Amino acid sequence: MSRLEEKTLHTEKIFTGKVISLQVEDVELPNGNVSKREIIKHPGAVAILALTDDDKIVMVEQYRKALEKTIIEIPAGKLEHGEDPVTCAKRELEEETGYDCKTMEWLISFYTSPGFADEIVHLYIAKGLEKKENAASLDEDEFVNLMEITLEEAEAYLKEQRIYDAKTAYAVQFLQLQKALKK
Amino acid sequence: MSRLEEKTLHTEKIFTGKVISLQVEDVELPNGNVSKREIIKHPGAVAILALTDDDKIVMVEQYRKALEKTIIEIPAGKLEHGEDPVTCAKRELEEETGYDCKTMEWLISFYTSPGFADEIVHLYIAKGLEKKENAASLDEDEFVNLMEITLEEAEAYLKEQRIYDAKTAYAVQFLQLQKALKK
Repeated sequence: MSRLEEKTLHTEKIFTGKVISLQVEDVELPNGNVSKREIIKHPGAVAILALTDDDKIVMVEQYRKALEKTIIEIPAGKLEHGEDPVTCAKRELEEETGYDCKTMEWLISFYTSPGFADEIVHLYIAKGLEKKENAASLDEDEFVNLMEITLEEAEAYLKEQRIYDAKTAYAVQFLQLQKALKK
Repeated sequence: MSRLEEKTLHTEKIFTGKVISLQVEDVELPNGNVSKREIIKHPGAVAILALTDDDKIVMVEQYRKALEKTIIEIPAGKLEHGEDPVTCAKRELEEETGYDCKTMEWLISFYTSPGFADEIVHLYIAKGLEKKENAASLDEDEFVNLMEITLEEAEAYLKEQRIYDAKTAYAVQFLQLQKALKK
């Protein structure tokens, strides 16, 4: 197997925003040539597959400006600086859905766009949901419609491309796999 | 259900690169307030779950500068301007693996990071693989190690976080689901 690492020769910081920052790196390739890499830095995120006691999936319908579309996703949110992912998952679940949970179990973590971004999503499964009184509320620039849907409805929304993002597609397929393994 | 759309008031273009571009949009929120959205534009990509006749999965090991890590992924690549996704999938499979295929079937498309990027991945399943003589080669700044692994090996690499990205995690889970449904 050949060596694959790329060595950073120079980093140019282009932009630092609320959510992401952008830098362009000059890198030395494995063959000694030089190329450029455009890289987005992101704080990382959590996503929560939250299941009600009657096996409904808690979803949020949300407008995504990057897509110019409203899509249906599992609840998710960015990590705050130094925040533990499981703490973040409980906070985001409460803020977006008003639910507290008895168990919050880690399922998988994955990078969303390894070609240009370091964003990682930590996916959890939450059970034993209970509506919390005086739940923390959404960030002031977040607006969502809360939904509770069956697996069959989720499958239909996937076909209709109303569910249309990687983490939610993964979560729905996870439930399909659990169901198939039970039979 | 409440209205969720955000109206663009102003777009500031910050950066245009080889792969991505960045713009910051002032948007009017559903409640009339104004906020900013940082948005990455990406041409879109394809990914290919390529299966050999003896049910091995074709993978590429690749250094990802954004992650400062070498990870194992299914073959993938960016759409060229105006390129049809299935044409792109066949081209990328040939360039990254040297394989031609008898069938290239669409599985799913998903947005990878809807919170800040419009990148969409079109995932295909390729079968009837045959090594092509004089196959097209990689871009001059791409270096990969080709691997052919079993589903069990893929599951182990997921646990070890050598497989660590959303599209590949989805593809491996897809094969787990197909296997479970066959039983």
